[in-house]
Amino acid sequence: MEKRIVIATHAMFSEGIASSLKMIFGDAVPVECITAYVDLSVDYQDKLEKIVSEHDYEHAELVVLTDILGGSVNNEFMGLLDKYNFHLITGLNLALLFEVVTCPAEDLTANLPSIVEQAREHIVLCNELVEAKAAAAADDQLAELNEF
Amino acid sequence: MEKRIVIATHAMFSEGIASSLKMIFGDAVPVECITAYVDLSVDYQDKLEKIVSEHDYEHAELVVLTDILGGSVNNEFMGLLDKYNFHLITGLNLALLFEVVTCPAEDLTANLPSIVEQAREHIVLCNELVEAKAAAAADDQLAELNEF
Repeated sequence: MEKRIVIATHAMFSEGIASSLKMIFGDAVPVECITAYVDLSVDYQDKLEKIVSEHDYEHAELVVLTDILGGSVNNEFMGLLDKYNFHLITGLNLALLFEVVTCPAEDLTANLPSIVEQAREHIVLCNELVEAKAAAAADDQLAELNEF
Repeated sequence: MEKRIVIATHAMFSEGIASSLKMIFGDAVPVECITAYVDLSVDYQDKLEKIVSEHDYEHAELVVLTDILGGSVNNEFMGLLDKYNFHLITGLNLALLFEVVTCPAEDLTANLPSIVEQAREHIVLCNELVEAKAAAAADDQLAELNEF
């Protein structure tokens, strides 16, 4: 079984995040990008629907990653979930993209819930992280002092 | 107090997500983008350090948003958190960017922990969302039938 990944976002977000992915994984990573509503001559509703309706489900799993819950792009795909057997994840960040790219096609259904959880944990207020590390280091120092 | 937002990522992710933001909020949204490691003639370590060291902290809060925890860009900023009083959030997605853009400068310190939590909840496996809604609708139907 193959794996097909489509990144669909408002404007250039999809191509931007794909360029980060390629900087790290190389150009060979197969992702398709939709930059919705950029070209006013394109019927994006039709374009998004065709991604899903014309996909070859016998030979490849389809994963669609979108920018934001409640946004037009994600709403279009949400309306297709009851008719087609594809995976739809919204709230895209780079950690999520890395995990989806590296997950084998046959493990997607089982692993996507935990992949989503991990991507959530990758959104971090680093000030709190640094404070927590400093507090832990202070605790360690205190514990060492108490040993004497 | 003003608010300064810097989006710093590997490659074009920063400019891509800023284009989505501008499609929705308009061109007037003041965000600065760093597309790290794209131009081999630039010393990015120096460039990132200067964003923080030359910032006017008396007149503006500085929020830096980066692409991924453990990545070079975020690591550079992490090393500056003990010297400079700026906000650093990693794992950037569009929900996070929206919330940071709309948060008043004076509320940033108090609100960023909950903004990060909300952005995490915006990463969603939509298949589960649709299944949960279908299950809730089925429960409602059953409850209605039981009333007769």
